[in-house]
Amino acid sequence: MEQTITLKEILDMARLKRMTLINTLTGFKSANLIGSADGKGQHNLAIFNSAVHIGANPPLIGLLFRPTTVARHSYENIRASGKYTINHVHYRFYREAHQTSAKYEEGVSEFSATGLTPQWVSGFPAPFVEESHIKMAMEYVEEYPIKANGTILLIGKILEIRMAKGLLEEDGYVDLQLAGTVAVSGLDTYFQADRLARLSYARPEEALREL
Amino acid sequence: MEQTITLKEILDMARLKRMTLINTLTGFKSANLIGSADGKGQHNLAIFNSAVHIGANPPLIGLLFRPTTVARHSYENIRASGKYTINHVHYRFYREAHQTSAKYEEGVSEFSATGLTPQWVSGFPAPFVEESHIKMAMEYVEEYPIKANGTILLIGKILEIRMAKGLLEEDGYVDLQLAGTVAVSGLDTYFQADRLARLSYARPEEALREL
Repeated sequence: MEQTITLKEILDMARLKRMTLINTLTGFKSANLIGSADGKGQHNLAIFNSAVHIGANPPLIGLLFRPTTVARHSYENIRASGKYTINHVHYRFYREAHQTSAKYEEGVSEFSATGLTPQWVSGFPAPFVEESHIKMAMEYVEEYPIKANGTILLIGKILEIRMAKGLLEEDGYVDLQLAGTVAVSGLDTYFQADRLARLSYARPEEALREL
Repeated sequence: MEQTITLKEILDMARLKRMTLINTLTGFKSANLIGSADGKGQHNLAIFNSAVHIGANPPLIGLLFRPTTVARHSYENIRASGKYTINHVHYRFYREAHQTSAKYEEGVSEFSATGLTPQWVSGFPAPFVEESHIKMAMEYVEEYPIKANGTILLIGKILEIRMAKGLLEEDGYVDLQLAGTVAVSGLDTYFQADRLARLSYARPEEALREL
């Protein structure tokens, strides 16, 4: 049996209920911590569930920003320095990662507030998260303001990947379950992943194989 | 111990290895089947891993299209009719969902090729996937061609949600694990999710609680 929820019912919902519902409807999402710095010694760390693969050549990742949220400092830092980091959230620190979404006072770094460790790599102006097993140094490329609701799609290029040894396989596959990377649904629910199968490239009239 | 992979090393990789690697780096992704029709009796079904939450009010979801791929028919149908469906991939049919990525000949519907069942709802021109537990009727809103690599961010508005009874909680939360929705990494690896915790709204100086 199916239940239906119309657009009118969605628009008539209480704001928090609507946010909770609509945020679950895209399906499982990624959990990444974005590290940035303002060049005056202040650094920021913010959790994002909106990373999206834009392309592999050149290697590009998109992030969606709501300018009115706590992620505003991250956005301003990225625009000022042109550099930032993306760090996968591991199941050992998903609570600390979630806590970065709190609205801290001006001048408080989410690193010191949550106990996560900033990792500085020579010559790169933004901090990585030391505890993360998969992280990328990113460079700002371009952005698209979304007319429909004022969010911004910000696209960056991967300058360098840093990952724990043993995760990268010969054919380029990275085992996210072995890496301990978590998945998210909605605004606040964290999951570990159990692999069902890796499937072969699909072709008409050919049975799929497990890789 | 960390290993590093530089941008030059990424660009020097064989094409398929680079695609496999870069596609894993955003973290876990959603798996959705996009249903569309051309108005002449031909309907299409294509798997997408790029659904991204754009906003809740109005309820908006983005999808990324690579115009050179098999998803081109879906794109053309959406532009022609202005309507499409988004259907969560359930663990019982992730193989059929993956198979929709095969390059079928002109005139072959991925529904009949994979055995998934088109579900028609009165007055709506695009097919839903009957086997799916969470599905949305969508209307085209706008699109953004991405300069950096020619992909297109297409944004649609949710007109109606259809979901199996018992999934929607009082506060708007939808239990994706109970729904059987799968997560994806890279291009080809499917996962079930195990909940770690749902965490309370984060505030400075306040301990997180499990909801």
